[in-house]
Amino acid sequence: MIVLGLDPSLTCTGWGVVRVDGPRLSHIANGQIATDTKSSLAERLHHLHDAVFAVIGAYHPDAAAVEEVFVNKNPQSTLKLAQARGAVLAGCGRASLPVHEHATRLVKKSVVGTGAADKTQVQAMLKILLPTAKIAGADAADALAVAIAHAHLAPHGR
Amino acid sequence: MIVLGLDPSLTCTGWGVVRVDGPRLSHIANGQIATDTKSSLAERLHHLHDAVFAVIGAYHPDAAAVEEVFVNKNPQSTLKLAQARGAVLAGCGRASLPVHEHATRLVKKSVVGTGAADKTQVQAMLKILLPTAKIAGADAADALAVAIAHAHLAPHGR
Repeated sequence: MIVLGLDPSLTCTGWGVVRVDGPRLSHIANGQIATDTKSSLAERLHHLHDAVFAVIGAYHPDAAAVEEVFVNKNPQSTLKLAQARGAVLAGCGRASLPVHEHATRLVKKSVVGTGAADKTQVQAMLKILLPTAKIAGADAADALAVAIAHAHLAPHGR
Repeated sequence: MIVLGLDPSLTCTGWGVVRVDGPRLSHIANGQIATDTKSSLAERLHHLHDAVFAVIGAYHPDAAAVEEVFVNKNPQSTLKLAQARGAVLAGCGRASLPVHEHATRLVKKSVVGTGAADKTQVQAMLKILLPTAKIAGADAADALAVAIAHAHLAPHGR
């Protein structure tokens, strides 16, 4: 099974693709889709949508995984995040790719062993789990983490 | 100028197309895009995205208009709305259609004459402004209202 992890955000959406072969996990690719802050909202959302659709076309994942949305205290941040998420998930829908949502706490627990792990711990564990991966940045790391978590949480599920 | 008004929502997105010819306003089409609550979130968002893209392809608007987002007291409702909005606006971006945002109060003021108008007043005014329109429902009415408001607020703007 090939899993695409996604970490949507309007500024920079992270993505990571891993192969799950029973208990064996291997890195396929990861990256970040940045949008131009000078572009309009519609253009930026389209860019995210299209780039995610292209990633799916390139790596043919069997499933996508995203974290459940964290409702930010700042409603404007939540709004931006949710609009980006909508564009990204519509890209998965366009590719008929099933999307699974996992709670942030479960993603961390699944990757590091504790739901209270911080970003540094997650990134250190990624280096151990995917030693060959050159990780594009913090957003790509979060995307790889949710892909790995999905592999652990739904080993046979698509 | 042809204006596409949009009223995004996950359950049912309204759309309305009007022609603006100087001070003259005429109805072209309106409709509602309902999504199947039994489908996955990604499928529903894709459906909205694709249907809006198809509407743009059918009527070739010069500009799209949406209301600025109302941040709901219920964060889950805001989240659903914003994700739908993200998928819809990405559809506009895909069609290279510029999108203009107008405050709800200004839309009401522009259509009815007061920013405190209720839905019934807006719909009554739509019957006067677009007498030939058969309006598909409340969401299509809201979409026509924002299209008309855009025509008033940005008569020469695209």
